[in-house]
Amino acid sequence: MKIKLEKKFISIKGFSFFGKNIGIKDNTLDFGGIYSDTVCEVGAVFTKNTMPGAPIIVGKEHIVDGKLQAIIVNSKNANVATEQKGIDDARYICQLVAQSCDIEDKMVLPSSTGVIGQRLPMDMIIKGCQTLKDDFGSSTSHIKNFAYSIMTTDTRAKYISVKIGNSTILGIAKGSGMIEPNMATMLCYFVTDAKISTENLQPILKRCVDKSFNRISVDSDTSTSDTVVILANGESGIVDIALFEQALLEMSIYLAKEISRDGEGATKLIELKVSGASTQEQALLTAKAVLNSPLVKTAIYGADPNWGRFVMAIGKVFQYQVDIQKLTIYFGTGDNRFKINAKMIDNDSVPLKKISNILEDSEIYIEIVLGNGEYSEIVWGCDLTEEYIKINAEYTT
Amino acid sequence: MKIKLEKKFISIKGFSFFGKNIGIKDNTLDFGGIYSDTVCEVGAVFTKNTMPGAPIIVGKEHIVDGKLQAIIVNSKNANVATEQKGIDDARYICQLVAQSCDIEDKMVLPSSTGVIGQRLPMDMIIKGCQTLKDDFGSSTSHIKNFAYSIMTTDTRAKYISVKIGNSTILGIAKGSGMIEPNMATMLCYFVTDAKISTENLQPILKRCVDKSFNRISVDSDTSTSDTVVILANGESGIVDIALFEQALLEMSIYLAKEISRDGEGATKLIELKVSGASTQEQALLTAKAVLNSPLVKTAIYGADPNWGRFVMAIGKVFQYQVDIQKLTIYFGTGDNRFKINAKMIDNDSVPLKKISNILEDSEIYIEIVLGNGEYSEIVWGCDLTEEYIKINAEYTT
Repeated sequence: MKIKLEKKFISIKGFSFFGKNIGIKDNTLDFGGIYSDTVCEVGAVFTKNTMPGAPIIVGKEHIVDGKLQAIIVNSKNANVATEQKGIDDARYICQLVAQSCDIEDKMVLPSSTGVIGQRLPMDMIIKGCQTLKDDFGSSTSHIKNFAYSIMTTDTRAKYISVKIGNSTILGIAKGSGMIEPNMATMLCYFVTDAKISTENLQPILKRCVDKSFNRISVDSDTSTSDTVVILANGESGIVDIALFEQALLEMSIYLAKEISRDGEGATKLIELKVSGASTQEQALLTAKAVLNSPLVKTAIYGADPNWGRFVMAIGKVFQYQVDIQKLTIYFGTGDNRFKINAKMIDNDSVPLKKISNILEDSEIYIEIVLGNGEYSEIVWGCDLTEEYIKINAEYTT
Repeated sequence: MKIKLEKKFISIKGFSFFGKNIGIKDNTLDFGGIYSDTVCEVGAVFTKNTMPGAPIIVGKEHIVDGKLQAIIVNSKNANVATEQKGIDDARYICQLVAQSCDIEDKMVLPSSTGVIGQRLPMDMIIKGCQTLKDDFGSSTSHIKNFAYSIMTTDTRAKYISVKIGNSTILGIAKGSGMIEPNMATMLCYFVTDAKISTENLQPILKRCVDKSFNRISVDSDTSTSDTVVILANGESGIVDIALFEQALLEMSIYLAKEISRDGEGATKLIELKVSGASTQEQALLTAKAVLNSPLVKTAIYGADPNWGRFVMAIGKVFQYQVDIQKLTIYFGTGDNRFKINAKMIDNDSVPLKKISNILEDSEIYIEIVLGNGEYSEIVWGCDLTEEYIKINAEYTT
């Protein structure tokens, strides 16, 4: 069935939101939360980085029972590498939220994103928690404020919604730099009023994440704070599970692409398919090698039809042999799709100008056909520009 | 024994050189060669990239017997992804050189570096080979011209020499971008008049390459053309093998650092030691993860004491757990060396200003102590700047 994604902030039965400024870094929104009137079933996936932030450690404890009722997020400071005191801070924040909402501490999932290696300004957060009861609301402006409050170097909010039967799913994400999620992603929160159990939600979310957030890279750097969570309060009753998964996957891919498109300094979204691989692993390793190659990314930025850099990057996957005579690379889509391969070099038939034109677009579609087998993968990323350097050479200072 | 490296172009008994312009791209030197009056013993290490250039394929055939007498190199075009015709081109160039010098074809090792995916301009090369006899000479200006003829985006020539007893070794290298050699390196040619057999040269060269060129990265992209060769003509008689290896290792490290320092757009050379690892693999994987992290490289460019990015990059080595309470990172050397660890975050004792000052230098020394075991590795790299983007967004066009 055709799923209709809607890019709008839409109220979800039983859920409240807030987003406000508590002064962590500047006067932009930096503190936000989600609250459900009733206990929710959950799914959650976290970063594989071996140096996870304190909120990840506490969050994993809190989802052991498969239940949650609130999410609390601050941006501008990731609460990572802050030792036991950072963990105590994350626990204390959950406790403050729980007291305000009159729920158990472990019903709260904490998240933090921003600079690594600095203690949270707990005085600001404690003060920010004093008015939580009044802060929460279910209007679209409450939801919008939440979406903005979790942003760091993002240039725009990332959100999507969908209706399936009587149920609605809303997804809100952030992410711009330090993006190569691995078995997880940057921050992304889904809420739904569909009735669906934790036993179903967890594997569904995992499959969706694997085909979306785990297939993007902005800069090959895996964050210490990556978190995707879904809360389902069941208020709208049961839902077609297959349809629900299809919708969640499409929403996840949409948000993953939005994160890639808004990669730090990016001017172009790249969708790269690798097909004809001899194994699934070869397809993914090759796709990631090309997507993360600084020389490929700068060539795309410059609209330079330098296909040799693709050849180089494909050849970096040392464990698989590729026959260059079977290799073909396609640029563009539909009628505006042109190929290049080694045979064409010789008779000077490479449509360099046409490929360069395609690379001028803000959405670039590339397919690499290895000619080795039947496996394929699709990944998303962005170009590498001077702006990425500027943003990251002066982040904390 | 103390080895004395000398940064000068020094004549080596029995070896001639040339470097000239044949117009491949512009009017800079783009064609060069080395010739030995007598047959040489050799060692050679090539790229692990699975899409090796035609000269690599032909070069591997030509060193099967462990003998060489000449090297021919062009820059500005790598002769990669050019199919059988590219291989035929590389063979034909060897044949032209062999005829000029009156030696067997297989005594010639070909090299090409530059853009990938374009046929060599054979008309220019054939014309360039007509005067080879007159081009070769043993003066320092001949050697200097060779060193310049192999450069691409390099901003300076890279060379080093050493004397051991009666023997001399000269090393000439190029490399600036597409630098993450793997079991090999960018182009580097060593010539010596020492008497030393191929059986000894090959393992010695391999060991030296592993501890030098295989420990650098400019941009994590492994070239299709990496080649390190040593030619020994024996004219100055036998040599102390241990001393020879020590000298070759120090020369290799010197040239590897020169390549890192001259990384495309680089403003700083980074020497990174990872110690306290539980295995050699953990030390190397961690060192490479940090050295290749765009977020670490941009922080160093901006002299931003953003130690959290180091924590993130260390955590990207998913197969090894690191205890953040045992982790310490040192910046600088000698009296000007300052540490940072998680405990210091809490009591606000991190010397951020001092670390920022250290990061302003053009040579940055960093040691990461994992606190897990006894293994260590040293690697070299450079910062990531807007200039890297500029260079690579308009390379072929």
